[in-house]
Amino acid sequence: MRFAVRLTTTLPPEMPESQRDDLLAAEFRRGQQLVADGTIEHIWRLPGRLANLGVWAVDTPETLHDALASLPLWRWMDVQVEALADHPLGGAVDSR
Amino acid sequence: MRFAVRLTTTLPPEMPESQRDDLLAAEFRRGQQLVADGTIEHIWRLPGRLANLGVWAVDTPETLHDALASLPLWRWMDVQVEALADHPLGGAVDSR
Amino acid sequence: MRFAVRLTTTLPPEMPESQRDDLLAAEFRRGQQLVADGTIEHIWRLPGRLANLGVWAVDTPETLHDALASLPLWRWMDVQVEALADHPLGGAVDSR
Amino acid sequence: MRFAVRLTTTLPPEMPESQRDDLLAAEFRRGQQLVADGTIEHIWRLPGRLANLGVWAVDTPETLHDALASLPLWRWMDVQVEALADHPLGGAVDSR
Amino acid sequence: MRFAVRLTTTLPPEMPESQRDDLLAAEFRRGQQLVADGTIEHIWRLPGRLANLGVWAVDTPETLHDALASLPLWRWMDVQVEALADHPLGGAVDSR
Amino acid sequence: MRFAVRLTTTLPPEMPESQRDDLLAAEFRRGQQLVADGTIEHIWRLPGRLANLGVWAVDTPETLHDALASLPLWRWMDVQVEALADHPLGGAVDSR
Amino acid sequence: MRFAVRLTTTLPPEMPESQRDDLLAAEFRRGQQLVADGTIEHIWRLPGRLANLGVWAVDTPETLHDALASLPLWRWMDVQVEALADHPLGGAVDSR
Amino acid sequence: MRFAVRLTTTLPPEMPESQRDDLLAAEFRRGQQLVADGTIEHIWRLPGRLANLGVWAVDTPETLHDALASLPLWRWMDVQVEALADHPLGGAVDSR
Amino acid sequence: MRFAVRLTTTLPPEMPESQRDDLLAAEFRRGQQLVADGTIEHIWRLPGRLANLGVWAVDTPETLHDALASLPLWRWMDVQVEALADHPLGGAVDSR
Amino acid sequence: MRFAVRLTTTLPPEMPESQRDDLLAAEFRRGQQLVADGTIEHIWRLPGRLANLGVWAVDTPETLHDALASLPLWRWMDVQVEALADHPLGGAVDSR
Repeated sequence: MRFAVRLTTTLPPEMPESQRDDLLAAEFRRGQQLVADGTIEHIWRLPGRLANLGVWAVDTPETLHDALASLPLWRWMDVQVEALADHPLGGAVDSR
Repeated sequence: MRFAVRLTTTLPPEMPESQRDDLLAAEFRRGQQLVADGTIEHIWRLPGRLANLGVWAVDTPETLHDALASLPLWRWMDVQVEALADHPLGGAVDSR
Repeated sequence: MRFAVRLTTTLPPEMPESQRDDLLAAEFRRGQQLVADGTIEHIWRLPGRLANLGVWAVDTPETLHDALASLPLWRWMDVQVEALADHPLGGAVDSR
Repeated sequence: MRFAVRLTTTLPPEMPESQRDDLLAAEFRRGQQLVADGTIEHIWRLPGRLANLGVWAVDTPETLHDALASLPLWRWMDVQVEALADHPLGGAVDSR
Repeated sequence: MRFAVRLTTTLPPEMPESQRDDLLAAEFRRGQQLVADGTIEHIWRLPGRLANLGVWAVDTPETLHDALASLPLWRWMDVQVEALADHPLGGAVDSR
Repeated sequence: MRFAVRLTTTLPPEMPESQRDDLLAAEFRRGQQLVADGTIEHIWRLPGRLANLGVWAVDTPETLHDALASLPLWRWMDVQVEALADHPLGGAVDSR
Repeated sequence: MRFAVRLTTTLPPEMPESQRDDLLAAEFRRGQQLVADGTIEHIWRLPGRLANLGVWAVDTPETLHDALASLPLWRWMDVQVEALADHPLGGAVDSR
Repeated sequence: MRFAVRLTTTLPPEMPESQRDDLLAAEFRRGQQLVADGTIEHIWRLPGRLANLGVWAVDTPETLHDALASLPLWRWMDVQVEALADHPLGGAVDSR
Repeated sequence: MRFAVRLTTTLPPEMPESQRDDLLAAEFRRGQQLVADGTIEHIWRLPGRLANLGVWAVDTPETLHDALASLPLWRWMDVQVEALADHPLGGAVDSR
Repeated sequence: MRFAVRLTTTLPPEMPESQRDDLLAAEFRRGQQLVADGTIEHIWRLPGRLANLGVWAVDTPETLHDALASLPLWRWMDVQVEALADHPLGGAVDSR
């Protein structure tokens, strides 16, 4: 099943630069793993903010929770999750 | 450029069944064309409502407007549009 | 998988009484079927309004959409859907 | 009487790991007690967040307040409470 | 148990005057009954609108639902309901 | 004149226990005075939160401001104030 | 006592021009009376909309309700009311 | 002085096509006049909706009101108005 | 031109009393100047909060900005600004 | 392509004056560069707040993101971005 996941990160402006860099680098590496294992199917940046919109494919809602909770930036994130269903036009998309 | 497009349709409950069926069929056919010409790259249904979330790829915002305004259900739709940027993880997605 | 489903019905006050009664009766019968086949696991009324909160168990989001769209009152409903995951305390609930 | 209770916890990201672990463990133990004594009838996790939706059964609103205020994480929680009434379909649920 | 109940009525401006008068008179008579039987403990008008804030005392949420649904204006009302608990200062109020 | 007053207190979770206890005790004593002098006519707790709904009777809006500003917890409070008018059903309430 | 009153009128676009003109003229005459008797102390238009912000001076909230309900456009209005208190700077304003 | 003006038009879907075309054509002609006389300094379409964002330059707020009220579609519009001040970077813009 | 200005101040509860007193006193003195020079035409307190509603008369939006930014409490304020136009009833107010 | 960009800055009131001045000066210099290279086409201050509304012209959404993220105040900003399309009246504006 798929979820639209909107992640917005708010880091305190006064966080030391090195901690900020480390967190963002760790987040990127974890993101690469989630892309590689097929959890993150699509991801786009929402321009102007530390935010993105993704489509996550998981076997169960529990797996989705664990994947999101595994993000190094999770404690600084606002997370919005929305279940997606196949759309009748989806067949046309896949066979394009 | 890409846009996240959220379309929510509200048809009056008292609309005659045949008009409703005709509109939904016309909408589906127009949707197939927009998929076929690559405008609608992705589309998912938001379960429980006459609503969907799509990713539309267009050359310009003007093209996006014309494509949305061409939908037979446009006059009954609430339209929300959000510009998307490439995400650094996108390369990993594409090469998967 | 389970969804929290919040259904709020708005019938036009001027709807003829017989149509209103028929719709509510048909809705109740469809609800009984969805309870009987295990789709609606729990349902509570939100007092003071034509509204309820339910927990729906389905195999896929597509099934959830079809079940909701099958409700006779669907065209008059505001539908809010939220995916649920098992909670760590759930084991304690089940073994109670 | 029953209440739908939605609990969202916001812990400061900079809280020491041991304090966080202790709080979450104490919360879990208190939750087990509330399940065991029948206060928490149902509970689901809202995936992606430190949040849950529960159905709490209490004799009075005062008891509900005391139960919620007894949670170790209460001071970090946003609490939303909604009274529930029996639904006419409830008989069908119970006799299923 | 007690509920804070906020009722806001929206009558279509074009409703015939006699129907409007009849509805408001019927609503007032039903209100008198609910005051007389102790259901409505307190009621205040929200000035400038066809709206009021009341405190309703009922044995169960189901009774609250039935009392609200019995109002002649119910189909034109927006209803907001909020459970109330005794406040520690209440003893001081009662013994005043 | 009367006001519906909704008070929601947010104390920082890390406030020392003794300061928290002192503040809550001082607030309770001030509340008792306001009940005794007839300012607070009614008060109910909103279960699950450090919050209450009250009906305050004052001679002027200036008096209301001073009474609220005299609360020891005022600096930690979100305050919502709504003017109330007599309701035509009020006579029935008073003569009950 | 004084209230900030925000009035927003929504007339159906298809209302016949003569009915619209009559209503607006009647509203203006009633407004002149309320200015003349000192009820409306100040009034400003919110540019671009059929809307205004006023300061109404009345003896009681009941009088405010009656004055607002006497407006010919009342049934088409959204009414927002907010109690005002004297400000410490008010003395400086009055003696200016 | 300048205002950011956001105009969103909602035409009933069942409006006859010829009336819709006439209204849109009249609106366009009036818009051309307001551009020609310098009232509308800038205007952009908000893609996907019958909506635009403009910067209107007027001598007084009263002129702004009259200009907006002169739009043939005004009765079907939601109008949002926001006063603008010169920005310190504006000199750089003008001398570019 | 005139603006409705709504100012809501949020001072941290833990601010030392002397700093709080100094800030409030400086704010009052600056307010007196703005009343004296005719910038603040009207001002009312919103009872129960550190908040007020004022009508500010200025030559330009730039002057409004400078006047607001000159307030000693500006950095702790939420500022809402709304342009006002003369109302047709204004003549009646002025000649009263 | 163009974007309406609304930037609202919230600096902690207790930030040292020199740091605040340095940040605002750096922001102004970066703004001058973005004006000079044509990224910021228009910019207006929203009076009374540390906020502005601008129209930014960029080749891609990625460029917009980088330009915004390059602002010295970016970590203290709330950023709202909205894609703009040409309006049919635009030709009239350009040839004015």
